[in-house]
Amino acid sequence: MLAAPKVNAFNPPRRTLMGPGPSDVYPEVLAAQARPTIGHLDPLFVGMMDELKSLIQYAFQTENAMTLAVSAPGSAGMETCFVNLVEPGEKVIVCRNGVFGERMRQNVERVGAIAVVVDNEWGEPVSVSDVEAALNANPDAKFLAFVHAETSTGALSDAKRLCALAKQHDCLSIVDAVTSLGGVELRVDEWGIDAIYSGSQKCLSCVPGLSPVSFSPAAVEKLKARKTQVQSWFLDQSLVMGYWSGDQSAGGKRSYHHTAPVNALYALHESLRLLAQEGLENAWMRHQSMHQVLRDGLESLGLKFVVEEQSRLPQLNAVYIPEGIDDALVRKQLLENYNLEIGAGLGALAGKAWRIGLMGFGARRENVALCLRALQEVLS
Amino acid sequence: MLAAPKVNAFNPPRRTLMGPGPSDVYPEVLAAQARPTIGHLDPLFVGMMDELKSLIQYAFQTENAMTLAVSAPGSAGMETCFVNLVEPGEKVIVCRNGVFGERMRQNVERVGAIAVVVDNEWGEPVSVSDVEAALNANPDAKFLAFVHAETSTGALSDAKRLCALAKQHDCLSIVDAVTSLGGVELRVDEWGIDAIYSGSQKCLSCVPGLSPVSFSPAAVEKLKARKTQVQSWFLDQSLVMGYWSGDQSAGGKRSYHHTAPVNALYALHESLRLLAQEGLENAWMRHQSMHQVLRDGLESLGLKFVVEEQSRLPQLNAVYIPEGIDDALVRKQLLENYNLEIGAGLGALAGKAWRIGLMGFGARRENVALCLRALQEVLS
Repeated sequence: MLAAPKVNAFNPPRRTLMGPGPSDVYPEVLAAQARPTIGHLDPLFVGMMDELKSLIQYAFQTENAMTLAVSAPGSAGMETCFVNLVEPGEKVIVCRNGVFGERMRQNVERVGAIAVVVDNEWGEPVSVSDVEAALNANPDAKFLAFVHAETSTGALSDAKRLCALAKQHDCLSIVDAVTSLGGVELRVDEWGIDAIYSGSQKCLSCVPGLSPVSFSPAAVEKLKARKTQVQSWFLDQSLVMGYWSGDQSAGGKRSYHHTAPVNALYALHESLRLLAQEGLENAWMRHQSMHQVLRDGLESLGLKFVVEEQSRLPQLNAVYIPEGIDDALVRKQLLENYNLEIGAGLGALAGKAWRIGLMGFGARRENVALCLRALQEVLS
Repeated sequence: MLAAPKVNAFNPPRRTLMGPGPSDVYPEVLAAQARPTIGHLDPLFVGMMDELKSLIQYAFQTENAMTLAVSAPGSAGMETCFVNLVEPGEKVIVCRNGVFGERMRQNVERVGAIAVVVDNEWGEPVSVSDVEAALNANPDAKFLAFVHAETSTGALSDAKRLCALAKQHDCLSIVDAVTSLGGVELRVDEWGIDAIYSGSQKCLSCVPGLSPVSFSPAAVEKLKARKTQVQSWFLDQSLVMGYWSGDQSAGGKRSYHHTAPVNALYALHESLRLLAQEGLENAWMRHQSMHQVLRDGLESLGLKFVVEEQSRLPQLNAVYIPEGIDDALVRKQLLENYNLEIGAGLGALAGKAWRIGLMGFGARRENVALCLRALQEVLS
């Protein structure tokens, strides 16, 4: 026998999480998650899932029947959209203005489809006119895929206009809303979004590990009309929906697909319930007003934003690291002396920017004050 | 705006979970999971993950460097093994003696590989001689895939002999240990298992949603020698390992892949710590002795086992539903009157058998007593 390792119980410190996610989790969500595990086919659990579905629909502002939480993180939500909807050989216009647009391109490639990349600078929003040109130049494109809120740069793109363009060109839209959901205006039905995914650990302030996803009726039709099998068994939505909405497609009976992450779903239910209680528009406004306080404070410390004001995400504030400042040392001091986490730069911005998150429960005056004072002290 | 649904906080009842999983979760695990979320790149979290890796290695009895928890349920662990190791056109011997062997076949099909199915009756273990014949008849086979402990029937197969056979025929072995890990003898290195996956929600008594996975050096070599790209971005282990073991392959730096399910990993760490504290062999013995008490009791109630004694899983007891008994009504009475969940039959055993789990924290004398007395009362 290999010997048992000597390991103590893990007692994490209390951090204030102001990076790109995970964000500070609501105490109510942590408590909900610790409630007793029940069976994933228990009638009471099934009732909870029905509520959860309606809460996800509310957060996305959609009546899409195919709305659920993928039992894995946002990257799996992204893959869910691509593997279910895109077939080998199909053409996808992919907008790339940061890390996650590039990840979309890799997903397209891995389903054996063709990605036509529209590049914009890191820190800029997706250019509507560039996308229009790409759609005109590729009349055979079937999809337009873009990131609503680029977590790697803090840039917000105009999802409403981009989805309208997609529709004009008979393309289905696939939208990354990992960082946008709950933090900025997002209206899936009104904007005509066909497939959307998000993450639990950003502006929902839930624990990381789940990905809310929604498909429009047109997307469901595309899925049903597939000529090839979905390459992932785990993410195949035609199978998953047998479990999530037995009430519709399977004659009331929920068929077993995989064991749902029961306690994580308790947590998501609670975080979305808190969002519904606050009201979506109130949450959007709160993120905006906290951002303004943070922005003024950061600018008074001499820090400059990566993204221009008009396309800046309130919940993800990327600022350039001043000349001569040791990136890692500052973050280490914030973490060790103030229990405060801010995010490093990612990809093209690694070593060049910090990413300060104001997400969900974290978008509060006390967090902003802590962050500004701690930065002031560490940078002085 | 679509209106916010009126939803109350979800307060699950306290059930005793004696189905096929999720099993009763250790109270310490629920408490661990509710500890404050910290960042997935926080040095303290990274230290926790190193411990977690050594705990998974202990539970699997392996020194495999590529050992980690997939951030999704066991079905995703299964898919991780197939999409990383098997390339299109390769031949896989798949043993099918229940639901999960069939799921393996579907995975093989979805990677574009060729499944040669070895069928055994539901309730029987995989036949070593049938597998030997299949290996002889298919000298070009590259893999042997089988389920160690079939959750749908309660049959235990001889993983040691099957893996030895695979090795003799130059095949890599892919083993489903979802229900076996922690409940019955399992020795990855000694038995020469090449790829193995499990689930958090069975004999580990952790919350559902994670899948411990381990690849042997030979499996890692196969992954590195791939001619084609892994079809899943999310499950691509060459990318995931950059995060899990930055200390080895990426020169000490952990590279971001996806946001780890932080709190679920706290839970897995705690459940494996409790297993290490008890000792793996002690846990195996406890499952066996609790099974014997349950077996005697069930037989005295006149219930007959689906699986012959010598290949019966202690942790998953499938018994035939007696003639004239209303399956659903019995389970409903147990659930509503005793807060006791037992499992329905699955696949070929649906409506014909019950599955009574004795897994991890659930394999205790008080659970056995409750189950026997409640069944006695409901069936009388």
